[in-house]
Amino acid sequence: MGSIRDVLTLPLAAYLWRRIRQLGVQSVMGVPGDMNLELLDYIDQVDGLSWVGNANELNAAYAADGYSRVKGCPGVLVTTMGVGELSALNGVAGAYTENVKLIHIVGTTGMRAQKSRAMIHHCLGPNPDHRVYSAISDSVRTAHCWLDDVNTAPGEIDRVLRECYLHSLPVYIFVPMDFVHVPIPAALIEEPVDLKPKTDYEACISAINAVIEMIEASSVPSIIVDALVHRFGASDVLNQLLDQLEIPTFTTPMGKSIVSENKPYFYGVYNGQVSLPGIAKAIETNSDLVIDVGFIHSDSNTGGHSRNFSSQARSILVAADYVQVGHARYDNVYLVEFLTGLSETLSTYPLTRLPGQRRAFTIPNPPIPTDVTAKHITQSWIWKRIGAMAGPGDIIIGESGTAQFGFSDAMFKPGVQYITQIYFGSIGYSVPACFGAAVAQLESEAWADAQALNDRARRGRTILVVGDGSLQLTVQEIGTMVKKGLRNVIIMVINNNGYTIERAIHGPEQGYNDIATWNHQLLLSAFGAKDGEVNSRVVDTKEAFEEAISSQEYTDLNSIQLLEVIMDKMDVPWRLQAQIDLINERNAKIKKQSQKTCR
Amino acid sequence: MGSIRDVLTLPLAAYLWRRIRQLGVQSVMGVPGDMNLELLDYIDQVDGLSWVGNANELNAAYAADGYSRVKGCPGVLVTTMGVGELSALNGVAGAYTENVKLIHIVGTTGMRAQKSRAMIHHCLGPNPDHRVYSAISDSVRTAHCWLDDVNTAPGEIDRVLRECYLHSLPVYIFVPMDFVHVPIPAALIEEPVDLKPKTDYEACISAINAVIEMIEASSVPSIIVDALVHRFGASDVLNQLLDQLEIPTFTTPMGKSIVSENKPYFYGVYNGQVSLPGIAKAIETNSDLVIDVGFIHSDSNTGGHSRNFSSQARSILVAADYVQVGHARYDNVYLVEFLTGLSETLSTYPLTRLPGQRRAFTIPNPPIPTDVTAKHITQSWIWKRIGAMAGPGDIIIGESGTAQFGFSDAMFKPGVQYITQIYFGSIGYSVPACFGAAVAQLESEAWADAQALNDRARRGRTILVVGDGSLQLTVQEIGTMVKKGLRNVIIMVINNNGYTIERAIHGPEQGYNDIATWNHQLLLSAFGAKDGEVNSRVVDTKEAFEEAISSQEYTDLNSIQLLEVIMDKMDVPWRLQAQIDLINERNAKIKKQSQKTCR
Repeated sequence: MGSIRDVLTLPLAAYLWRRIRQLGVQSVMGVPGDMNLELLDYIDQVDGLSWVGNANELNAAYAADGYSRVKGCPGVLVTTMGVGELSALNGVAGAYTENVKLIHIVGTTGMRAQKSRAMIHHCLGPNPDHRVYSAISDSVRTAHCWLDDVNTAPGEIDRVLRECYLHSLPVYIFVPMDFVHVPIPAALIEEPVDLKPKTDYEACISAINAVIEMIEASSVPSIIVDALVHRFGASDVLNQLLDQLEIPTFTTPMGKSIVSENKPYFYGVYNGQVSLPGIAKAIETNSDLVIDVGFIHSDSNTGGHSRNFSSQARSILVAADYVQVGHARYDNVYLVEFLTGLSETLSTYPLTRLPGQRRAFTIPNPPIPTDVTAKHITQSWIWKRIGAMAGPGDIIIGESGTAQFGFSDAMFKPGVQYITQIYFGSIGYSVPACFGAAVAQLESEAWADAQALNDRARRGRTILVVGDGSLQLTVQEIGTMVKKGLRNVIIMVINNNGYTIERAIHGPEQGYNDIATWNHQLLLSAFGAKDGEVNSRVVDTKEAFEEAISSQEYTDLNSIQLLEVIMDKMDVPWRLQAQIDLINERNAKIKKQSQKTCR
Repeated sequence: MGSIRDVLTLPLAAYLWRRIRQLGVQSVMGVPGDMNLELLDYIDQVDGLSWVGNANELNAAYAADGYSRVKGCPGVLVTTMGVGELSALNGVAGAYTENVKLIHIVGTTGMRAQKSRAMIHHCLGPNPDHRVYSAISDSVRTAHCWLDDVNTAPGEIDRVLRECYLHSLPVYIFVPMDFVHVPIPAALIEEPVDLKPKTDYEACISAINAVIEMIEASSVPSIIVDALVHRFGASDVLNQLLDQLEIPTFTTPMGKSIVSENKPYFYGVYNGQVSLPGIAKAIETNSDLVIDVGFIHSDSNTGGHSRNFSSQARSILVAADYVQVGHARYDNVYLVEFLTGLSETLSTYPLTRLPGQRRAFTIPNPPIPTDVTAKHITQSWIWKRIGAMAGPGDIIIGESGTAQFGFSDAMFKPGVQYITQIYFGSIGYSVPACFGAAVAQLESEAWADAQALNDRARRGRTILVVGDGSLQLTVQEIGTMVKKGLRNVIIMVINNNGYTIERAIHGPEQGYNDIATWNHQLLLSAFGAKDGEVNSRVVDTKEAFEEAISSQEYTDLNSIQLLEVIMDKMDVPWRLQAQIDLINERNAKIKKQSQKTCR
């Protein structure tokens, strides 16, 4: 005889949303459409879960990405089969490449229409396969499921959510319209989804021992901290471990803000040959052991693949799901588990040699920019200045382009989170990502605490830095910020009259690097902000910039502020120019070589 | 001994752009990126070809679609591998579903980086396959090529352009960065690409004879004109044929504006059960022969699949590449060739029975709307009114949503082109499509003539009708209109406070059908238009609407005008409600039946 619980049911959609809420998700991004409307009905029925509603689906995907990066749980977006689903694809691809957890839920046609291959709106051509879109997203997800069988659906949801966490990658859940309400046993929801990887503990212990041994054997070790540490939620344990090791520590451009940058063992950003003087030499020449943690070895994260380490024998790689110590590889050893195990081991058995001896590098002061005395706002000045203005709890979003290259020179205070999309590098990412990040920030306990104490200065701010070119791709998400009444956002628009990063790469005066000339001062008002014009300013000198960011409106932020920053269209960060020079030089060499071979 | 012409070369990119220019293309849409910049250098070197530069890639695809629909040649867009390419995908999918010619050119990484699977920005994950995106677009194109072999590249370009025309579908051309400048024989450009299908002439003649025989044998034939007639460039020959036949003629919602609607044989829009009184009966009951030309049998083009013809034996289907006469099918018979052949045959051998006898239907007057006397702007009034205001040379773009359902009730004067995306139904399509259409309109001879004569009233206008919800997805393309200095565009924003079509379908008062509240009156100015506020108006009564559209600013249009039209959020066109009712009724029946079966 079954208990009463065995006969209780809940609709499939309710199960889905409650599962998602269990992960910590509080806001669902997306755009409504006739194939997902009934699915959306169930969102607000879940305690603590809300529908957001973005201006378009690409923006929804970017917003979910930004949300996930701040909150640690997956970002969630809902679209409609085909039209919305494909519009979001590029945003999901970015999350895939940068290991951001995303759950993309697609409302589709019902099973009857699918089986008869009916020509329903949003389908492709005559006799359409309604599942053709599902194949399209195969390369940008780690798992997917179709909720088209009442018996398997709950298990499929659970499996896919687990995969999302295991790989920190996007997953897709397809919901046919006619399966939204089907009843499933309510008891299933009570057992939480197992999100932990199946660690090989013996391999993990061996790896920990091998790593400790190698560190002890080295004279001048160094650590490079990269993005996957953040993506797999290992930032806290890593910082704890760094405090134990006190080994000279660097971050990559993508790893920036994971490490507390005020620590004495922190040396700055390592980006191959595109680093400040002394940095590359410290790692590549002076270190006899390099520990590369949570790496993404993409071009702009390695100075255009210009890293030049000595030998594999003297390196340790800590990847998402394995650890490589010299030539030995330990599989099924996962980032968080490994770092936690290493930290715990060191607590019990500290290193026999004092970490202090390993603080061996003398890095020269960065060169003084030639335009340091300029009164107008320069690339050599602004990024450090924005970095300095941010305090604990603040989030900075840097768009692809000059901002991304520039921010490697900024020093971030502990508790500042920096978000940027370097590997995928899709312009337009930052505006919706800022929206998602700001929503997550408002949901944080720290923000609620500061708010409760009416401690305005301690409430975190989300500071977006976007170029006038990139802004145009996704600008309408400012409207969603206004709709949601966000008051924790500062939008800095770098107005340098077009695609400056592309001018630096090719065609400085070509028409294709020009853009439409907008009136940025009217944007907030056009998108519906009250006092939009009052809260919009334009500055073209360092002094005016200082005045703006030190005003009470900015320090005690209480409504969206837009700051248009006028800069020279041909001014670029030194790092961008250095990387371009390096690649051009390399290409010239290759060309010369191939010409020789041809003779 | 070769001639001098055999040794002359031109860069591959120059060949590509000259080929595209030969098709009639004058404007190239897209967004620049570091992998396509050098490719773009060659555009302006071709006489009569210009780069446009859109606000984002989805918009560029929609714009290319609108451009193609007006101009007849393919729309062309250029994007960057991955980031831009995927962002455009949904726009290309729409063109695919609606048989619009598109050439999507993607600038990719060079071959060396592809072969080494380097982690270059815009790639997917570790050890990336740079060609993974090419597989993603496989379902939304009819052909593609990679220009990665100097010997095959020109032939591949030609093959793909031919396929674009044969099927009137999108094609992709992938250009690795390092192949942009490779030299190819210049002489190749002189032989034009063969764009004509390989007709089976015997089958074509047999089909023509069979069709004439069947028409002669019928007493009450009727013709349904649909979208593919337009897509395959057969509108002129079809209208000529209709004048010869004088058979009662209908259009589908997607076929609207192909036929001259002032002809005595034109009866209106046939959309299955969702038609004005008498229409369905005329075709389904009173006709003894139905000729369905250029059909796309999607749901909203057939009243939710509610057509109810008698028998196949009494029907003729004229498809893109075959003709079906009763049970006999004639393959490799193509739309234009067939219609031309039929028209020529009828010129020599007219029908033996007078066409006049076939004008047999009495269609009752449309019912008078219950809200006919309303002073405010109603759904039952506005679409007919906008239809009536358009004159020869004008283009009307109707967004998915109420506009799309409403415009079936409008009567268009000859020479008015109506554009809408009914089968794919992707909201946001209309704003960039309007931009593309307006660019094509300015390039037309008719416009140039009127301009030369300073005949402002005869210069065509492009009239966009978009809802406040749909507008938000792609609004930034208004900035591109301003950048290009377009002065032939009227933007009508139907402000009915959210997604009204979705309120009608499900959740009338649900929050997910609400949108951000923008200040539409500021949009033109924010996007950089001079006198933007002067050229923006808001109207909420029929009288004010009349006043606006009859003002000189609208009749002698000389700068972009924005007209915000306030309408009730729950008012919907009768056709939308009728289709919803029909589908709900059908679903209820299915549910009831399946419950019976289960017992």
